Amino acid sequence: MLTLDFHPAGRHFLQIPGPSPVPDRILRAMSYPTIDHRGPEFGALGLQVLAGIKKIFKTVQPVVIYPASGTGAWEAALTNTLSAGDTVLMYETGHFATLWKKMAEALGLKPEFLGLPGIEGWRHGVQADRIEQRLRQDSEHQIKAVCVVHNETSTGVTSDIAAVRRAIDAAGHPALLIVDTISGLASADYRHDEWGVDVTVSGSQKGLMLPPGISFNAVSQKAIAASKNAKLPKAFWDWTDIIEMNQAGYWPYTPNTNLLYGLSEALEMILGEGLDNVFARHQRLASACRDAVRAWGLEIQCADPALYSPVLTGVMTPPGFDADAIRKIIYENFNMSLGTGLGKMKGGMFRIGHLGEANDLTLMATLAGCEMGLKLAGVPLAGSGVVAAMDNLAAQKSKPVLKAA
Amino acid sequence: MLTLDFHPAGRHFLQIPGPSPVPDRILRAMSYPTIDHRGPEFGALGLQVLAGIKKIFKTVQPVVIYPASGTGAWEAALTNTLSAGDTVLMYETGHFATLWKKMAEALGLKPEFLGLPGIEGWRHGVQADRIEQRLRQDSEHQIKAVCVVHNETSTGVTSDIAAVRRAIDAAGHPALLIVDTISGLASADYRHDEWGVDVTVSGSQKGLMLPPGISFNAVSQKAIAASKNAKLPKAFWDWTDIIEMNQAGYWPYTPNTNLLYGLSEALEMILGEGLDNVFARHQRLASACRDAVRAWGLEIQCADPALYSPVLTGVMTPPGFDADAIRKIIYENFNMSLGTGLGKMKGGMFRIGHLGEANDLTLMATLAGCEMGLKLAGVPLAGSGVVAAMDNLAAQKSKPVLKAA
Amino acid sequence: MLTLDFHPAGRHFLQIPGPSPVPDRILRAMSYPTIDHRGPEFGALGLQVLAGIKKIFKTVQPVVIYPASGTGAWEAALTNTLSAGDTVLMYETGHFATLWKKMAEALGLKPEFLGLPGIEGWRHGVQADRIEQRLRQDSEHQIKAVCVVHNETSTGVTSDIAAVRRAIDAAGHPALLIVDTISGLASADYRHDEWGVDVTVSGSQKGLMLPPGISFNAVSQKAIAASKNAKLPKAFWDWTDIIEMNQAGYWPYTPNTNLLYGLSEALEMILGEGLDNVFARHQRLASACRDAVRAWGLEIQCADPALYSPVLTGVMTPPGFDADAIRKIIYENFNMSLGTGLGKMKGGMFRIGHLGEANDLTLMATLAGCEMGLKLAGVPLAGSGVVAAMDNLAAQKSKPVLKAA
Amino acid sequence: MLTLDFHPAGRHFLQIPGPSPVPDRILRAMSYPTIDHRGPEFGALGLQVLAGIKKIFKTVQPVVIYPASGTGAWEAALTNTLSAGDTVLMYETGHFATLWKKMAEALGLKPEFLGLPGIEGWRHGVQADRIEQRLRQDSEHQIKAVCVVHNETSTGVTSDIAAVRRAIDAAGHPALLIVDTISGLASADYRHDEWGVDVTVSGSQKGLMLPPGISFNAVSQKAIAASKNAKLPKAFWDWTDIIEMNQAGYWPYTPNTNLLYGLSEALEMILGEGLDNVFARHQRLASACRDAVRAWGLEIQCADPALYSPVLTGVMTPPGFDADAIRKIIYENFNMSLGTGLGKMKGGMFRIGHLGEANDLTLMATLAGCEMGLKLAGVPLAGSGVVAAMDNLAAQKSKPVLKAA
Repeated sequence: MLTLDFHPAGRHFLQIPGPSPVPDRILRAMSYPTIDHRGPEFGALGLQVLAGIKKIFKTVQPVVIYPASGTGAWEAALTNTLSAGDTVLMYETGHFATLWKKMAEALGLKPEFLGLPGIEGWRHGVQADRIEQRLRQDSEHQIKAVCVVHNETSTGVTSDIAAVRRAIDAAGHPALLIVDTISGLASADYRHDEWGVDVTVSGSQKGLMLPPGISFNAVSQKAIAASKNAKLPKAFWDWTDIIEMNQAGYWPYTPNTNLLYGLSEALEMILGEGLDNVFARHQRLASACRDAVRAWGLEIQCADPALYSPVLTGVMTPPGFDADAIRKIIYENFNMSLGTGLGKMKGGMFRIGHLGEANDLTLMATLAGCEMGLKLAGVPLAGSGVVAAMDNLAAQKSKPVLKAA
Repeated sequence: MLTLDFHPAGRHFLQIPGPSPVPDRILRAMSYPTIDHRGPEFGALGLQVLAGIKKIFKTVQPVVIYPASGTGAWEAALTNTLSAGDTVLMYETGHFATLWKKMAEALGLKPEFLGLPGIEGWRHGVQADRIEQRLRQDSEHQIKAVCVVHNETSTGVTSDIAAVRRAIDAAGHPALLIVDTISGLASADYRHDEWGVDVTVSGSQKGLMLPPGISFNAVSQKAIAASKNAKLPKAFWDWTDIIEMNQAGYWPYTPNTNLLYGLSEALEMILGEGLDNVFARHQRLASACRDAVRAWGLEIQCADPALYSPVLTGVMTPPGFDADAIRKIIYENFNMSLGTGLGKMKGGMFRIGHLGEANDLTLMATLAGCEMGLKLAGVPLAGSGVVAAMDNLAAQKSKPVLKAA
Repeated sequence: MLTLDFHPAGRHFLQIPGPSPVPDRILRAMSYPTIDHRGPEFGALGLQVLAGIKKIFKTVQPVVIYPASGTGAWEAALTNTLSAGDTVLMYETGHFATLWKKMAEALGLKPEFLGLPGIEGWRHGVQADRIEQRLRQDSEHQIKAVCVVHNETSTGVTSDIAAVRRAIDAAGHPALLIVDTISGLASADYRHDEWGVDVTVSGSQKGLMLPPGISFNAVSQKAIAASKNAKLPKAFWDWTDIIEMNQAGYWPYTPNTNLLYGLSEALEMILGEGLDNVFARHQRLASACRDAVRAWGLEIQCADPALYSPVLTGVMTPPGFDADAIRKIIYENFNMSLGTGLGKMKGGMFRIGHLGEANDLTLMATLAGCEMGLKLAGVPLAGSGVVAAMDNLAAQKSKPVLKAA
Repeated sequence: MLTLDFHPAGRHFLQIPGPSPVPDRILRAMSYPTIDHRGPEFGALGLQVLAGIKKIFKTVQPVVIYPASGTGAWEAALTNTLSAGDTVLMYETGHFATLWKKMAEALGLKPEFLGLPGIEGWRHGVQADRIEQRLRQDSEHQIKAVCVVHNETSTGVTSDIAAVRRAIDAAGHPALLIVDTISGLASADYRHDEWGVDVTVSGSQKGLMLPPGISFNAVSQKAIAASKNAKLPKAFWDWTDIIEMNQAGYWPYTPNTNLLYGLSEALEMILGEGLDNVFARHQRLASACRDAVRAWGLEIQCADPALYSPVLTGVMTPPGFDADAIRKIIYENFNMSLGTGLGKMKGGMFRIGHLGEANDLTLMATLAGCEMGLKLAGVPLAGSGVVAAMDNLAAQKSKPVLKAA
């Protein structure tokens, strides 16, 4: 039987910035028996989830759902719109932006990689003015696409996508705007249509609170037009047949039926709570988490307060303290998983996820686990982050009126 | 569909002293398809759970499992051993002891109810010397049974059952010893055989981490002998046929099959962790919880430190603050359920459950919810209970050796 | 881990007349996390299921739901309405009627047991005229209650309860009418109010498609009035507090929360399909099953065609063929459980359940398993019951209009 | 809520040749909470499923598991081993072979498509001698790979892969052998190593009894060597990093965690039953199914008895009877899904799946639904297929010894 059963007693706290904890409701929905993906019930399910997911992306354009995890949707965005040798302008915001750039190279594209040097680029967001500047130089329109990450999961920095759109427009450049919001969708405000994004890439295992296994391309008409001339070979990722068969709620090949059940339930939960309420909840928890980090006297990875992520908070560990050793202490003593530092930040930070199925008390449990673990690890703390977070959260509640006792 | 779906986002914290949170593993086990309760698989299941549950009660005697919730097992203990008009000596430790006494009256028994006056009796445990004294007076052995509650769920006081046994023996009295450990079993140390208990009553929804719906009578040979002459009418509760059919793993009438699946899983979890480890975990969490209460400057309901319950902690609210109003604030703002004050303590206390599927971080979440709620309610707090609890828990961990970074 | 996992490959067919197969929907509903049985969500759930279950009983009177399996509801019906030494008129329709009579004796009542001699009584229903005749003799109204089984699970005979009501009225006798429809409810038409039943007893694991563990007493005002003077000791089964607390959706002691989730889902399924459609489906399947038995040349246990049960069909095995040996062959070769012959019919019959989560193809699988097993056992068959059942079922379908190919 | 809830009463029979019915055990395993895909439990899970899946493929070589459905694994097999413009020899065995060929074209390969004309090729398997002949002609080794489908899901023909291997060897040709056994794996005998297959493609939703969403490439050392020079762009599908990270049980990008739980359970079920027993069970059911088709007087799609599929049986409908109209009648009247005729066979056949979670009685239910539906549709039947199938199945059971009654 599965070794997962042998966790210590009590609930494990999965506080990595994704996969986020999957609500029981969604796990139950996913255990509906698999149905015929060519039958009438499936068509109804397909239409339902396709309509619902558009509301999450804030788009009236097609959203392609792949039976594949998020990395595949990265590839799909590139192969549907580009041809071998095309130049793409990418921006180094962190580890995932870097991986995406490597994928572009592997696929035969020529990425240019803007960004600040050293770890500075990993503490700030996309600088739209630099993109504008570069596009203005590209008078021959060699650059076919601008690819940026909205919520950089490796750092906790959420870039301003509307500003990137304005930069492209200001430069009068025809490049496509391709955005990864794998970890931002349904946790941070995102507006595919309003921001003029051509392809938005996302996945299931973050704000949508699903297990990993399905991923998305929201596409603009401009992107679809571009796909007619894009020459990178593609079959599984090809939008054409999918978008056509989606008209009736079906897919050209076997979809990931049980994850679509989960998606249906997730949409009901998120749209039932209200997207704005979901976003406000994430902002509230993120704010309390940052107050905790400040109270500990530790540094928040994101150096630009305007770009703090509502999804996760990157915490830099003081020199001499290996972040992964601290994470291990927390894992072993307090049955909690935190995100590791990736790439350039390896050993120098850990990441606290506070997304999806998260509320005040799960955050407090998380922060208590961090605080106890940091102390156990001998990290000198300036004060109690837990107390600071409680003060933050309580201050956001309206004062109750007690009846006279 | 069920309104339960419409909880606020994120996990609800069920921190009442039972039903305790049911682990996912048990909910999954309970979703096995129901089988033929006369077929060979059922017999194997029956033998398995009957053998396992004896280890939890620490007995080699029969344990009768009823497809009924705990109140039924109270009734079973009385109707199997007693006759109309029998005198039973009961002890007022709190609300549940009082309810049990009322049941004895309803069944036509004559309970004598010892205990301290006012709420004092609800802050202390069973005083074995008073039982001894009363039994010594009963030279004609009118008293047929001594009935006491081991872990009084309404107060958080865990009485010393071995002392009661010694008292009965010292008095040389033949009365049966009948003990309710509905909320104590599998959380607090309990020894049916060693303590010479004749009937132990328990239920599923506390330390066993199951939903409510099955309950237990562990019985001694002396109790079985008494049952041959007991005259209270009984059929459903009658031990005789059950014990006989249990030899082969079956029941005389339809058992609660899916809860037995859950019981099988619970036994695997508890015996897998090790009963001593389970008890130590409960003691650790209870100790941290009490430190929190003390740091807040509030009073613990249990006035006798030797009898602090490892299952729950009763917290008395200061004069002028209605405990149920505070509980409502916590429920509405922090998505957590706490136990109400019952009977004499109505409005004057709340109860924090820290039993079963509980660990350090679920306790910290619980205490943070209490602390924020108490503040919101305007209760003046002496300090941060959350910090005190973290100090307590961290002190119980061995200092990790960090590799040089 | 549970031995149930080690069934042969493929779905087990549970075709006993209860517990019936539990639909996946219900198993999923039962895996909602257990909630506070004193909290507001629980009250809403309680009111919902209490309102829904009345529709199933066709009553506007209270329906008491016990966290105990069906045998307990038998006891509840008797202890709430009767006193020690009361005479009750019962009717031997089969094994369960006999067990109920034994329970009445155990509880100190004086049952008179009407019925036909030998196995004849087990092949016919309640003869209302004999009840009328006996009541007319009872001029002093010693008989306090008439207790009959609606759908006798051991035989497959469904008695005419309205006729019993008319008999009591014709005799002008004040006895209560107490009816067991444990296996009839939600499969066979049942009308608590219209038929003037005073207490109807039922359970969860038959037509309601739930696992065993909850049971019911639907009560009339006359029964409630009788309960005020009934002297049998009772506490757990006492209607009074339950009915009062049910006003707000709660119970006086811990209810069986997760089975109530299941009940909520079952009610949605049954009332969604429509009670009349549910009854018609059961009649259709039962009719096809009987055609199969006839085609095999075997005898149907129920000798009165007007009283054929829609829930199960009892099949008598020819002399020289032990029914349990045949059942064992079917179990081992075809992974199907059938009901055994009980009491007087031990070895001489088996029972095919076709209730609850049943449809045409599950019936066909069942009959195919029977037919192959009977042949393997060497029972001479007159013809193919499977073919007869297919003919029956197909004849009930409207002829489809095929488009020209 | 999901429309799937609104099926008619009783279990739906999903008898398409995949997705096959997912056993409850697997659905439950899939509802374990998602864990950190970088944590130690995940590594243990990864190593466990990677070791187990090799036993199913009968290989000691790497098996790459993709978090994507089966069509993706087709693409992976091609992009990892081939370069733009490469000639591949493919064989038209049916619809899926044809789709795979179209994919090869879309990816920029040059497939040559062998096969018999008209529907004849769709009734026979791969003719190894034609492959040998073609390879002998290719003295310059332009052909880089031979791609064949093992179990053609659209027809029910299972080709002889060992013969294809022998043909390649006899021709002394260096082409890779790439085999699709998406619907054959774990139902039909398959031997990756023994048959010298270079890449075997498979998926989760057939013999492995999982929902769709993960897929496989089992690879030979020769295939890995070829991948070093293959020039088709690839990133998501690239074997290199996956195989390397799999050493420790991890994946380079987010895996489909909950489906891996399901895979772990499926492996335990299949290896627990024993692969040979699984294959024998499929052969037994397929044999009975074919007897039914013959008894009806209908034609089996597979014209070569040596190649009958153990997974599914294609049934040709008589001229004038549209197979899809018949399927619709069966769906609406008997709550069963059958496979449609695909491509060239559209309207002319239906497909009965008897794979995975299948046993004697689920097959009998299936055949009864077909027989009743065919009759309702007015198709003239020569006799009862159901009776023929029962005879077939019963004949395979050992005669039981009945104790004297």
